[in-house]
Amino acid sequence: MKPMAIALSTVLFVFTFALPALAADPLPSWNDGPAKQSIITFVEKATKAGSPDFVPVPERIATFDNDGTLWCEKPLPVQLYFVLDRVKALAPQHPEWQTTEPFASILKGDLNAALAGGERALVELVMVTHTGNTTVEFEKIVKDWIATAKHPKTGKLYTEMVYQPMLEVLSYLRANGFKTFIVSGGGIEFMRPWAEKTYGIPPEQVVGSSVKTKFELRDGQPVLVRLPEVNFNDDKGGKPVGIHQHIGRRPIAAFGNSDGDLQMLQYTGAGSGARFCLYVHHDDAAREYAYDRKDHLAKLDQGLDEAAAKGWTVVSMKNDWKTVHPAGK
Amino acid sequence: MKPMAIALSTVLFVFTFALPALAADPLPSWNDGPAKQSIITFVEKATKAGSPDFVPVPERIATFDNDGTLWCEKPLPVQLYFVLDRVKALAPQHPEWQTTEPFASILKGDLNAALAGGERALVELVMVTHTGNTTVEFEKIVKDWIATAKHPKTGKLYTEMVYQPMLEVLSYLRANGFKTFIVSGGGIEFMRPWAEKTYGIPPEQVVGSSVKTKFELRDGQPVLVRLPEVNFNDDKGGKPVGIHQHIGRRPIAAFGNSDGDLQMLQYTGAGSGARFCLYVHHDDAAREYAYDRKDHLAKLDQGLDEAAAKGWTVVSMKNDWKTVHPAGK
Repeated sequence: MKPMAIALSTVLFVFTFALPALAADPLPSWNDGPAKQSIITFVEKATKAGSPDFVPVPERIATFDNDGTLWCEKPLPVQLYFVLDRVKALAPQHPEWQTTEPFASILKGDLNAALAGGERALVELVMVTHTGNTTVEFEKIVKDWIATAKHPKTGKLYTEMVYQPMLEVLSYLRANGFKTFIVSGGGIEFMRPWAEKTYGIPPEQVVGSSVKTKFELRDGQPVLVRLPEVNFNDDKGGKPVGIHQHIGRRPIAAFGNSDGDLQMLQYTGAGSGARFCLYVHHDDAAREYAYDRKDHLAKLDQGLDEAAAKGWTVVSMKNDWKTVHPAGK
Repeated sequence: MKPMAIALSTVLFVFTFALPALAADPLPSWNDGPAKQSIITFVEKATKAGSPDFVPVPERIATFDNDGTLWCEKPLPVQLYFVLDRVKALAPQHPEWQTTEPFASILKGDLNAALAGGERALVELVMVTHTGNTTVEFEKIVKDWIATAKHPKTGKLYTEMVYQPMLEVLSYLRANGFKTFIVSGGGIEFMRPWAEKTYGIPPEQVVGSSVKTKFELRDGQPVLVRLPEVNFNDDKGGKPVGIHQHIGRRPIAAFGNSDGDLQMLQYTGAGSGARFCLYVHHDDAAREYAYDRKDHLAKLDQGLDEAAAKGWTVVSMKNDWKTVHPAGK
């Protein structure tokens, strides 16, 4: 392109940019209503130069839970299906698993029986299926799996089970100078391989649970080896800790869907200046799933009460979202 | 400004941009020579669209050690002077320190005697002076200290003891689409409060050593409490681990000055595509300090050999740098 051609397109861009009143709806998959309006009001307030609520660009940090906030977490969180498939893939090397729990139940296809062993069984399953390899090897395993694994009910790829309205919130915030982060109880290395393509969130903006990792030289080549030991549990009170460790600033906006996100929302809301806290409330049994106060894996109970008391936005998936998943997917 | 005025300035900008050959020297504090040339050659290669060495913007990650690479670490690393001043400030609350090592030596002004207790004494000193407060309180303590504490030899503020040629490398890389990170053995919370102003590196791009932190509600207000327990040691093999944990991508360029940075340079250099590894060699006793193979705190020994064997850039501070610290400071 010649310089004058560039300049012309720039002029057109400048004119477009100078007419925000005519801009398209940034949240087209949201029904008009208080939830949608609260997001727009917050962004306009935080970005309006000279307003008392103005937040400088570097401080515009927004954090998002992943499971149930950005993508579907039912019937079970996606990472558990990864565990299941990994156990099956590794089983030929472990004949003893046929008669040892929690593996035997998994190999019989009974995930609930396997999970009956509680947190100890779950940690054992995660360690066996997620570690003992290098970071490069594990990344490839996740990429290969996520490219083909399908949701048990819809038959869609898991990366197609993301929430279209939340993708629009991510884009809208970024278009307004926000840095968007994932802060999830899920594995940091399980999310990074696909988060950039799926959400536009680069690896350095993903915070999650992790295992310990060790540097080694193998035949003179440096590798990072994943060890079967929990390094960090990024859930509940761990979320503000993970945020502080990775980001080092308090977010001004936080998005979650369960009591596991409550401390992140408390920490975000307690800062000074413009603040925004939002819960996605799964009340849409017809188009997705309906669960809240009594769910055993992703309970939203205390959080609902605190949201009401503090005036946080509670999104009714049923009423506030025009569509749930991206069209054509 | 009216749209046409914006468009005109944009046209001028586009023309300027189209004439890189006339651009000012991006590294004016560097003497011409192989070190300076190696930096420029790498950046031009990595950013030239269509070239086999082209690196897409998201992959342009550059990591910098801090002590001895971005600022002066002699006679002792700056954070040790912070420890010293904190011990003095806290001493009235600890009468027992007058007769207990390593505190007694510090209170007598004998830092070397205090450090004779080895790593155990050092960890004890760091825990006592860095923890037991909230993250917000600690940030304020660091900010207040760094605003006034002076280098014992030059009498300058520590933030004036940064290396002007390295500030230019940081700016040059960022102007070419790189994200610049600090990866230091120093405390992550000791660096974040001033790194953005001093280096243009935001908190979320600072990686360092850390203590464990705990979320608590105090009178309904969420706080993060700093506990007297090491969470992560971001040195030697810990540097690639810290990089992987925080950034999740392998850097394509890494800058250090000691054997503590060697694993970071190995990890960076072992990736495919355009790569750049650089050691700052302190050989300038007249303008700064001269130390390498035999230094007891920041030894550069194995690193010098490996740099020679692998063709990494070794910067002679004496010959390659026109100036050491920013002018007028």
